[in-house]
This record gives sequence, structure tokens and C-alpha cells, in this order.
Amino acid sequence: MSLRSIYQAVEADLGGVEELLLSVRSEGSAWLDEMVAYSLQSGGKRIRPALTLLAGKFYQYRLEGLLPMAAAIELMHTATLIHDDAIDKSAVRRAKSTVYCVWGEAKAILLGDFLFARAGGMATDTRSLAAVRLFTETLATISTGEVNQSFSAFNLEQTRTQYIERIARKTASLFALSTESGGLLGGAPPAQTRALRDYGYNLGIAFQITDDILDFTSNERQLGKPIGSDLMQGTLTLPSMMILERYPEDNPIKRLFENHAHLSELEVQSYVKQAREIINRSQIARDCRKAASEYSRNACNCLKTLPPGAIRGALEELCSFILARRK
Amino acid sequence: MSLRSIYQAVEADLGGVEELLLSVRSEGSAWLDEMVAYSLQSGGKRIRPALTLLAGKFYQYRLEGLLPMAAAIELMHTATLIHDDAIDKSAVRRAKSTVYCVWGEAKAILLGDFLFARAGGMATDTRSLAAVRLFTETLATISTGEVNQSFSAFNLEQTRTQYIERIARKTASLFALSTESGGLLGGAPPAQTRALRDYGYNLGIAFQITDDILDFTSNERQLGKPIGSDLMQGTLTLPSMMILERYPEDNPIKRLFENHAHLSELEVQSYVKQAREIINRSQIARDCRKAASEYSRNACNCLKTLPPGAIRGALEELCSFILARRK
Repeated sequence: MSLRSIYQAVEADLGGVEELLLSVRSEGSAWLDEMVAYSLQSGGKRIRPALTLLAGKFYQYRLEGLLPMAAAIELMHTATLIHDDAIDKSAVRRAKSTVYCVWGEAKAILLGDFLFARAGGMATDTRSLAAVRLFTETLATISTGEVNQSFSAFNLEQTRTQYIERIARKTASLFALSTESGGLLGGAPPAQTRALRDYGYNLGIAFQITDDILDFTSNERQLGKPIGSDLMQGTLTLPSMMILERYPEDNPIKRLFENHAHLSELEVQSYVKQAREIINRSQIARDCRKAASEYSRNACNCLKTLPPGAIRGALEELCSFILARRK
Repeated sequence: MSLRSIYQAVEADLGGVEELLLSVRSEGSAWLDEMVAYSLQSGGKRIRPALTLLAGKFYQYRLEGLLPMAAAIELMHTATLIHDDAIDKSAVRRAKSTVYCVWGEAKAILLGDFLFARAGGMATDTRSLAAVRLFTETLATISTGEVNQSFSAFNLEQTRTQYIERIARKTASLFALSTESGGLLGGAPPAQTRALRDYGYNLGIAFQITDDILDFTSNERQLGKPIGSDLMQGTLTLPSMMILERYPEDNPIKRLFENHAHLSELEVQSYVKQAREIINRSQIARDCRKAASEYSRNACNCLKTLPPGAIRGALEELCSFILARRK
């Protein structure tokens, strides 16, 4: 099933979100406006705003709250990506030069800050203090996950529990915000808002594990960004943890992490290539996909208490889509 | 008059703001908590939170809104300084190593993001959507000012109007937020909230011009950060604009800006020293102080419509304090 058909029930309103995103401007800085337009035209999948609208559509579909919240979430997401790219010194994302690459680090930091501000403003446009509260708490959670990832870089002593905790913070929390805020602003009963949150959380974990697999198995053309970037940043993910567990002798990741400070670009590339080869000739990608499907199944189970029909069907489809996606 | 005596009427409650600041924690990241504690113990002057409390004290002194707002503003200020230091690669501020210097750039970016989130959370604690709105708009304005400053670096073709516009955004907007939000949360009549905002705005301009003078006339021991950093970053300020106007021939700033990409550290230092010498033997510092006093006088005039008494006296004293300060 395509994203387009999954989004069908809210497609017109996703256009409204897009309009809100394109309305983001500074008060009279042409420089800033150019960067804002560049970063928001980058054509992401808009999964998070779609989740907010779909979750709200179960209940009272009050667009005056749902549209700004959906836009706020996409803006926050964009701002965190811009900061991530500055931190990782990434040149390409979504097959486009990053803000970091085009304008440099200072501008990337400041543009991110500006978008956080505008995102907070949009969240305020919902006129729901509870929604603003969820918004600020989620940004705190994401930053915490990113800080932990940064401090854990090139550390081989990490458990799967730590991995799940990390991706829960940096990715699943925003998915959870997307669905929870949709329920909240739609006026869902508290138990259903909780179920929507749990759905988003599990979906987000499945999404990130899939992302981490694709960083090994995809290619730059398809993914729109370089392959192997997690290893190059020293970030252990589920596939790399499995490589470490199953190939304790002569392990390229161990070598890369232990000597990263002294390696040439070519040596790094060679270790990353070796790690990819292990993934290709082993069952690791399959086993990671199994782990992702488990979270995706959990997500689906969370939907059981929600009203049946087309919306629930779309959210169920999204669970499979997320696992099967190639970019 | 000392800051302490100016703050007298709200001193106990500034202790409450300090407690709120020290209560800022992550959800379980020891790394992040260490950085948060480090950055909030840095002992700034806390002028902005004092302004919020003093402004609120004219009216209904509802601490349940004023305390979190004052803390939110100080948190936002701290976060912007942390990002500024990462952008400028500054090693020292307030006589302490910067977060950038101790933990590096990635952590400085992420810590700033976390503090923005917690600042937004505190602003939400006021339970006033209008206060949250002012908060997010001010962060957008500050980022816009910083972006413009960054794009104008090493550009000799800047007018005084552009300078005032820049410092209005990056500095005066936060002073204006401090006083306006105090009035708003205290329930001031709209015209008085507006007067408080105008007071904060003019005070902020006077504050920043004074800052820009001190960057030439002070010394590192007193200022707690290196002297001449504006010129080294390529930022034109009022004193450097006056040097350019009055010494068009053989001008060290012109030479520095035109050749900055090819200069050694020593050559840069030499040009900065020459610029400082011009300030010392000319009337420029005096003329800049005159400009600052004009804004400070405007600020004082804004107070005329506010209730007379000790609070107004304190805000009037602050106008003189800001001009006379040495750090």
C-alpha cells in the first residue's frame, strides 16, 4: 500500500499543513526566509503530521487545533534534523545538500533555533496548554536522547536496552507526540489517547530500527543520504550490536571504534564496507526486521481499543508500510 | 547604587527563580544533568528575571505565574549564550570555560536545545497562552537578529540603523519580553504593559551599546571574557562604526575585515589592538556612551505613566546602573 492511500482520509488537510509550513517567515530577514524555504521544501514523508491528523480524525476533527499541531511537529522535526546534520557534519539528506553544507554550521544552529521558536508558536496556536506542554516535553526528551547518543559515541559497551531507550527518546517520542496530540486535540477519552500514544511509540521504535537496518542495506541513491553514517558517527545500532555479538573475533566495528581517532577516511570506509558485507552474508538484517516487526505488531495491538473503520485501517497499514519502506 | 539594592523589593523571590533554575533536570541522563548544572551555576547578573518580577510587582504580584516566567526567560537567555559560544568558538564567558570549550560543539548545540525545551515548559507553567506566545515570538526575534549578524559578518557596508535593528532583535527583545511579561502576568492595564515593554526595549538597547563599548575599553579579567571578540567575529558595533567614519584612511578595522580570510592570529590581534588604541585616544567611547544614555533616558521616560514608589525608583536606578556597569 502506498503512503498516499494510507493518508487518503486526511490528504486534503495535509495540504493545509503544507500551507502552514510554507507560511513560516521571519520578521524581515531575507537571509533567514531563504533558509527556511529551502529547509521546508525538502519533501519529507510527512508521516508525523499525518499521524496527528489521522489520530484526531477518530474524534472531533477540529482542524483549528490539529493543523497547527501537525505543522508544529513537522517544524520541530525539521529543526532537529538541521541540528543533527550540523553535529554530524552531514552534507546530504533527502538527496539534497543540507543546510549545514550550503550555509555552514553557524547558520544551521540559528535556523534550527528559529524553527524551534516558530514550532512553539504553532503549538501555541492550538490554544491548548496541554498540547504545548506535550510539545515542550517531547523536545526535551529528544534532546536528551541525542545527548546520550553523543556521549555514547564509539563506546562498545552498550546494551540493547540502552539502544531501545535511546531510539525511544530520539525518535519514538515524536511519533508518540504526533498521535497523542491528535487524540488530545480531538477530545478522545483519556484511555484512547493513551492507546494512541502507545501506538505512536511502538511505531516509532519500528521506524527507527528499520532506519538503522537501511543504513547498512540500502544505497545512497535510494536513501538520499550516505550509507554507513551511523558507524562513521560512532553510533551503535541494533544491526551493529548483532555484528559485535555474533562475530566477536576480528570484528570491523570493534576495530573502527577502538581506533577511530587515528584512522584515515579510507580505513573508516573499509571497516564500514566490511560491516555491510557481514550484514549481507548473515541473518542479521532478517533478525533486526523481526525485532522491528515485533514493535510494529505491538503498535497494531494498541489500535484494538480504537473505533474500527477506515482510519484504524490506515493506521494498521502504516505498521506494514514502515517495515517495508526502502527510504 | 548596587544591583542588590535595586533588586531589594524582589530579592527573596529571585531566590525562588534560582530554585526553579536549579530544579531543571533531564529524565535520567546524568551527562545532561551535569551540563545543565554547570551552565546554570555560572552566576550571571539575573537582570532579566529581576525585570519580570519588578514589573509584576507594580500590580497583582502573582508569583505562580511570575516565577516560572522569570525562570523561563533566564533559561532562554542561557541557551542562546551556549549556542552563541558554539558559533563563535568562544572558550571563556563569565570567567569560566564555556560549555563549548568543556564538552565541544555537539553537546553545546544539544544542551541549548534541551534548555529551550525546558524554558518553553516553564513558560507553559505560567498557564498563560499570551505569555507563551510572547516567549516563542521573542525566541524567533532573537534568532533572526543572530542570523542577520552572522550574514553581515565582515561586511563594512552597514548603517547605524542596521546596527540598532540588529541589537534590538538580539538583545532588546529579551529585555522587552522580561518587562512586558511581568506586566501581563501581573494584570497591568494594556497601556502600562506597553510602557513596560518600551522601557525594557530601550533599556536593552542601552545595555547592548554599553556591552559593545566594554568590548573595547574593558579587560578580560573584569569582563570575564576576551576583549575585542566582536571585531574578531567580524561584528560591526557602534564604536567600530565610529572608527570607520572618523578614520577613513589607514583604518585597522577596514584592513581586518577586508583581509580576514588570510590573516594570522597575530595580525588579527594587532588590528584589534590598533582599534582599541584609537578608542582610547579619541572621543568615540564618550560619544557611544552618549548614545547609550539617550536610550537609557528614553527608558526612564517610559516609566512616567507607571505607579510611583519604590519599584519605579528601582527601575529608574537600573537605567543608570546599566550605563555605569563595568562588566
